[in-house]
Amino acid sequence: MLYIGESINGTIPAVNQAILKHDADFILKLAATQVECGADYLDVNAGTGGIGNERDDLKWLIELLQDNVECPLCLDSSEPEILMETYENYRGKPMFNSVCDGKKLDIMAPAISEQECSVIALAHGEDGIPDNAELRFVFADKIIKRLRNINVKDCDIYIDPIIMSLSTNTGAGKVTLDTIKRIHEAYPEVNIILPISNIGFGIPKRKRINDTFAAMCIQNGANAFIADVRDKSFIGTTLAAEALLDKDRFCKRYIKAYKKGRIE
Amino acid sequence: MLYIGESINGTIPAVNQAILKHDADFILKLAATQVECGADYLDVNAGTGGIGNERDDLKWLIELLQDNVECPLCLDSSEPEILMETYENYRGKPMFNSVCDGKKLDIMAPAISEQECSVIALAHGEDGIPDNAELRFVFADKIIKRLRNINVKDCDIYIDPIIMSLSTNTGAGKVTLDTIKRIHEAYPEVNIILPISNIGFGIPKRKRINDTFAAMCIQNGANAFIADVRDKSFIGTTLAAEALLDKDRFCKRYIKAYKKGRIE
Repeated sequence: MLYIGESINGTIPAVNQAILKHDADFILKLAATQVECGADYLDVNAGTGGIGNERDDLKWLIELLQDNVECPLCLDSSEPEILMETYENYRGKPMFNSVCDGKKLDIMAPAISEQECSVIALAHGEDGIPDNAELRFVFADKIIKRLRNINVKDCDIYIDPIIMSLSTNTGAGKVTLDTIKRIHEAYPEVNIILPISNIGFGIPKRKRINDTFAAMCIQNGANAFIADVRDKSFIGTTLAAEALLDKDRFCKRYIKAYKKGRIE
Repeated sequence: MLYIGESINGTIPAVNQAILKHDADFILKLAATQVECGADYLDVNAGTGGIGNERDDLKWLIELLQDNVECPLCLDSSEPEILMETYENYRGKPMFNSVCDGKKLDIMAPAISEQECSVIALAHGEDGIPDNAELRFVFADKIIKRLRNINVKDCDIYIDPIIMSLSTNTGAGKVTLDTIKRIHEAYPEVNIILPISNIGFGIPKRKRINDTFAAMCIQNGANAFIADVRDKSFIGTTLAAEALLDKDRFCKRYIKAYKKGRIE
């Protein structure tokens, strides 16, 4: 299981303020907490809704984090040009979040093909999100083949099968589960990553929906999450799911996380 | 989803005492609480470890519950003769828990074939529990065919795929999940029932293991549980799983249960 800590993101109000003020203490504390909670990567998104200067803010964040925190970063922006510029300052093998087939990949392809990196790619094109697993698979299939062609190895590809809210579409869970299954069967070495928290939006006891969905996604082949790694019931559920699928011999990882106080 | 309330069981110390004393108030309160929490059936097991008279105690329980509670009962005893005797006093269509192929079914077969009833049957024979899904399926397949032969309809058959503890066998979850899948694929109309609480025995945060496992079992085809229906996180998880699989249009059942305070 791979966990990407989602919390350094300018869309979260308190983080938005910290980015705008270049409040290093706040950001480093947020980073340290996520690493303590088991984050394998830290997502870094400096988008502050047009208030700050995303390019400069992202550069500042990357430098600050790379100088102080021993955890690789997942570089996140809706602007491919910004990603391409900032990653030049990145030391190590970068991970990009999130690429979809079309213009964004056109712009990023030359840089991606040049050096080893990981890529989170979306199972849709530029014209919206398909409401069925067949079409989402077509997009996943297309972008996987394209990434392979520009020298990205299967083990460095992370497909996001897309999660919509169950409250607005009663089939939202099923279509994502089916998409995961199809991708995993066709490309067993490709990773499947989920920004889990969308599914329960607007439903009471939302966490219960999110956690239950995480277990079901893992059963179908998901092996990575963009999530709030400080959430102990979520971490407990995902580690439990792995143990139940016989992917955690003697429940070692589950019990280790329990002893560290990381699961609930 | 079908829920069988597990709590009227002589192996639980407080219930054991109530059965031995024929404490009607205690039993009726326990029954009423389970019904309020959404139990579709109440399991009734008068086994008190050889202290009481199981035959008389079970008769007393059945009469007490049928006179006072509007909820069908699941008659439970390790002694098939006791089941056969007591069920003569049962009004309505009985459910029997739990039958396995061999002597127990030999004794019960004539009565089962005579009148409509539901049967919970175990996916093992008399010589122990297979550690692999293939052999468990062989036993399930055998008992399903035998039950069909004595006029039990598929919709009245409940197969228990057997849950061992993950703490003593690292593959315990996987073998049950695989067994469920095989049975469900071969017999889509047959129900699959789980006494869920065994899986997490001996593991920290046991409830987290149990709930996560319940979601995964539902995904593979399980549709019934013998469980503590008063447990709100368990009920929340199972209803969430159904909604996520698009089996609860507009999350109606989930939201209804939430409004009644039944889920957490």
